[in-house]
Amino acid sequence: MSAFRKALQGNKVLIFDGAMGTLLQSRGLVPGQSPEQFGRSNPEAVAAAHRDYLEAGADVITTNTFGGTAYKLGTDIDVRAFNAQMAAVARKEAGDKHFVAGSVGPTGHMVRPLGNVGFTDLVQAFRTQIRGLVEGGVDCILAETHFDLAEAKAVVVAARQECDLPVGVSMTFEGGCSLTGTPPHCFVDTMQNLDVDLLATNCSAGPEQLVEVVRDMLPRLQTPLLVEPNAGLPELIDGETVFNLGPEAFAQQMRQFVELGVGCVGGCCGTSPDHIRALGRECPEKSAAANSVFSPCPPVVVTSRFGSVTLGPKSPLALIGERINPTGKKDLTAELQAGELQRACALAAEQVQAGATVLDINVGAPLVEESQLIPELVLELSRRQQVPLCLDSADPDAIELGLQAAPGSPLVNSISGEEGKMERLAPLCVRYGAPFILLPLEGGALPVSAESRLSIIQRLIDKALALGVPKRLIVVDALALTVSSKPEAARACLETIRACQERWAVPSVLGLSNISFGLPARELLNSTFLTMATGAGLSGCIANPGSVRLQEALAASEVLLGRDPQAQHFIQGYAEWTPGTGAVPARATASGGGEEERT
Amino acid sequence: MSAFRKALQGNKVLIFDGAMGTLLQSRGLVPGQSPEQFGRSNPEAVAAAHRDYLEAGADVITTNTFGGTAYKLGTDIDVRAFNAQMAAVARKEAGDKHFVAGSVGPTGHMVRPLGNVGFTDLVQAFRTQIRGLVEGGVDCILAETHFDLAEAKAVVVAARQECDLPVGVSMTFEGGCSLTGTPPHCFVDTMQNLDVDLLATNCSAGPEQLVEVVRDMLPRLQTPLLVEPNAGLPELIDGETVFNLGPEAFAQQMRQFVELGVGCVGGCCGTSPDHIRALGRECPEKSAAANSVFSPCPPVVVTSRFGSVTLGPKSPLALIGERINPTGKKDLTAELQAGELQRACALAAEQVQAGATVLDINVGAPLVEESQLIPELVLELSRRQQVPLCLDSADPDAIELGLQAAPGSPLVNSISGEEGKMERLAPLCVRYGAPFILLPLEGGALPVSAESRLSIIQRLIDKALALGVPKRLIVVDALALTVSSKPEAARACLETIRACQERWAVPSVLGLSNISFGLPARELLNSTFLTMATGAGLSGCIANPGSVRLQEALAASEVLLGRDPQAQHFIQGYAEWTPGTGAVPARATASGGGEEERT
Ligand SMILES: [Zn+2]
Ligand SMILES: [Zn+2]
Ligand SMILES: [Zn+2]
Repeated sequence: MSAFRKALQGNKVLIFDGAMGTLLQSRGLVPGQSPEQFGRSNPEAVAAAHRDYLEAGADVITTNTFGGTAYKLGTDIDVRAFNAQMAAVARKEAGDKHFVAGSVGPTGHMVRPLGNVGFTDLVQAFRTQIRGLVEGGVDCILAETHFDLAEAKAVVVAARQECDLPVGVSMTFEGGCSLTGTPPHCFVDTMQNLDVDLLATNCSAGPEQLVEVVRDMLPRLQTPLLVEPNAGLPELIDGETVFNLGPEAFAQQMRQFVELGVGCVGGCCGTSPDHIRALGRECPEKSAAANSVFSPCPPVVVTSRFGSVTLGPKSPLALIGERINPTGKKDLTAELQAGELQRACALAAEQVQAGATVLDINVGAPLVEESQLIPELVLELSRRQQVPLCLDSADPDAIELGLQAAPGSPLVNSISGEEGKMERLAPLCVRYGAPFILLPLEGGALPVSAESRLSIIQRLIDKALALGVPKRLIVVDALALTVSSKPEAARACLETIRACQERWAVPSVLGLSNISFGLPARELLNSTFLTMATGAGLSGCIANPGSVRLQEALAASEVLLGRDPQAQHFIQGYAEWTPGTGAVPARATASGGGEEERT
Repeated sequence: MSAFRKALQGNKVLIFDGAMGTLLQSRGLVPGQSPEQFGRSNPEAVAAAHRDYLEAGADVITTNTFGGTAYKLGTDIDVRAFNAQMAAVARKEAGDKHFVAGSVGPTGHMVRPLGNVGFTDLVQAFRTQIRGLVEGGVDCILAETHFDLAEAKAVVVAARQECDLPVGVSMTFEGGCSLTGTPPHCFVDTMQNLDVDLLATNCSAGPEQLVEVVRDMLPRLQTPLLVEPNAGLPELIDGETVFNLGPEAFAQQMRQFVELGVGCVGGCCGTSPDHIRALGRECPEKSAAANSVFSPCPPVVVTSRFGSVTLGPKSPLALIGERINPTGKKDLTAELQAGELQRACALAAEQVQAGATVLDINVGAPLVEESQLIPELVLELSRRQQVPLCLDSADPDAIELGLQAAPGSPLVNSISGEEGKMERLAPLCVRYGAPFILLPLEGGALPVSAESRLSIIQRLIDKALALGVPKRLIVVDALALTVSSKPEAARACLETIRACQERWAVPSVLGLSNISFGLPARELLNSTFLTMATGAGLSGCIANPGSVRLQEALAASEVLLGRDPQAQHFIQGYAEWTPGTGAVPARATASGGGEEERT
């Protein structure tokens, strides 16, 4: 384990440094000039600023490379050499008693669909910068002041491809979410899926304004947290920006984070070596809360840019809308073959309206180029809908491109025991922090009995773990088979669901519609089975959210499983419900169905 | 263990004797005279007949006491002395190498409600006869040629009160059931609840005609089985009744029973010592099937005179109609207070029509004498309805009288951990072969968590077993508490259901309606919870069978749990079902409700 990782786990609060700009201004940086431009020709000034922070007691200093990508430095500068130079300056001052964090800020360009830059272009740019930082000798990569989830994800992907150093990511929130709409807990969930080593929030206003942000993060945290606020709110005094919190006031406000369990503190805009010195005095040791906040058994979380959907025993069932799937839908098939996405987008809207919390995307049909259409549809839906996506394709290239296009942590549907499948897809899921559905199929024969399912699941989980997949990315398909041809299959499926929870503590999902194939009253059978499965511990279901029966069953199930506090949602939707007539709450009426067959 | 019990478990087929009457005729019995009258004054003739069978190879001879109760012997004969005399005659011939079965036939009188004799009167009559048989030295009591379940039950109750000898019961079937409507499997279930040592069928036509009877019994058997057919069909030849199967043909036909697993054979009308001799040659050893047919883990079965309802993982959920309960029903309360049962009987009919498979009987209201009304209602419903009953009363005397009035094995609702309750009621359940609902309540506080429920259940099961209750009489109430005030209660109830199956292998039931108290859309919540509970392994539910939602949920659940072969019932009821409109199969429309509130 690296010394930095060890330090993150020690009892001492790790003190990071404060603002660099102000210190460089006092050493010659002029308005309009970037700290990077200045530092490149005045490395001694940068070294002196680092020394100021080290003398003030900082354990970690941050390289002067915040704007160190080609996007910011311009084309006439050697990105790699510049970053190596700045990293070396910091390294020299830090010696081997202190740590150097290689700062990686935003590029200033938006990734598609918000802007025109491709995700892989961003990754490339970050890789060049990070290669330089690593050459210069940093102890970790620290993405700072990020405001877009996709860009932050690009830094992590880049760092993992360049080095084995610890990676930290810091995001800036205002009014409850980042500039492009990500709430703090969703940032935490996404980054933990990427297995980052340090989570952080920085800049924003002063410490008081970050309390809500930290409180939103804490229940999900399994990773050390760094808090680096500005020195309060900026005021314009005599034409100069002055921050309103002095060192003592700042440090005293910072104590509450340590008490909440935060283990790393530092400062952002307006903080000086004096702030850092005061911080060291106020926050010497971690509090008892520091360890207790890290929940030992994480649920699986899928995310979009806008939110998280948790798959776990304490969370409401994730309803994964199944209808973006050309099977049996002529119009959708024709549109997808023509490369058009309107009908798919309409199905997305209908399903979200009906209560889908995740959208499955399947464009598999003859003459459809999935590796082109999947990423296009991901971008389109990421712009139009706020729910996470589920990438459903037999084409691994399409999955890979979809993973790059999705800003958060989409769900991959699925990885079976098919030859080579796990080897090809599991590393992609790890790289992009994407949970996947493990499909217990091997060698062609359907496992009907619970025993045969469980032994396949055991083998596939073992294989995934051996490939370095963390357990928090594994979801099991409990395999709902057709009960009319396999009367024991539904019972075996229920047993599988229980085993997933009890034996492996992994969540399970299932595709609902198969179960009733060939029988009448399919909606009745489907909703009945979903109820049983939910009672047995199912975490998610791939289904048509337009089914009124399904919605009724789910609403009632959540009350019964104690996941609808004070039955608030249920009472809201079903206060006027009467038996037999099937009165339906507003959000469940957009059943649609249109010209398409239900599968 | 008695020598007779040991012999039942050995590898040799036990050979019983054949008809007594024919042998006595050849020794002086004249037409119109009963074998008992004749034997009383000609004990040597009886002894000679016994010798004939012993010489023919019989292991067990049967006393000449078939008509040995006061009802048959008349009032001028000392019943006890007569039975002791006949038993002693047989004992002397059998010595200590062979066994004597003390024959107890029907009284010729019908028990209420079919006739005018009370159940306890029958028990008294049988006790006197059995006391004599025991004095005379029989090895077991064998009730023969019975045709009414209640009367057969009275023999067992009487025998258990008089002695510790093994008890066997033989019933005669014709056209698929006994004279008063009991099918063979229901006879087996009821008698096994009474823990008899030997089950039997005798008389009827020849062996071929008993094959169906034995096949109906075998899947339920956990008790040795004796088959004693007549020597084929009787023909009138020259004014004399002659049976058409000679010794060899008879014995050859009997082989098939041994191959099916039957371990005891003998003959009834028309069989002679030659038949028994041939039997001994054809059937020396038990077949391998003899042990395999006894299922190791019996389900709990409640019965009426007409049929059985099984509570177990392979059986459809038992729907116990809750509506015969005056709580919240003004008209029913008033009627019960006036001692009238019309409304209760109407509620019974409605519920059976709606699909109830068991009827709960609760008449608890102020000014109602339960110990009078419960047995009256039991008799009334035993006459009008074919489903088993569930005796629901806080008054132990009412339960005891109800147990005497019910012809089969009713369910007792319930035995809690309340001081003295188990000690008072458990011995009654054992005596009358009645399964009971174990209610996990102790000392007033409701156990909400699964842990607290399970520890109470463990204690109460231990207590019951210590009181000699066999496990096949124990059903656990999984305790559905109100989810609006205890949000974790429903989940705990599901866990309790699973533990009942996995830890104790006892079935569980629950009273459904509490769960949704205080919430809207109660029928939706109730049917949803019932579905979850059924999926978790629930075996029975006390509920209003008139709920369409409930019926839909149950029909679908049985398909999904593989308990509706080829989904036959489901397709029959729901082929035309469409979602939302709630189209309902015929038998589920008699919802009723009338003036009464639903509780
Ligand atoms: Zn800042
Ligand atoms: Zn900063
Ligand atoms: Zn006979």
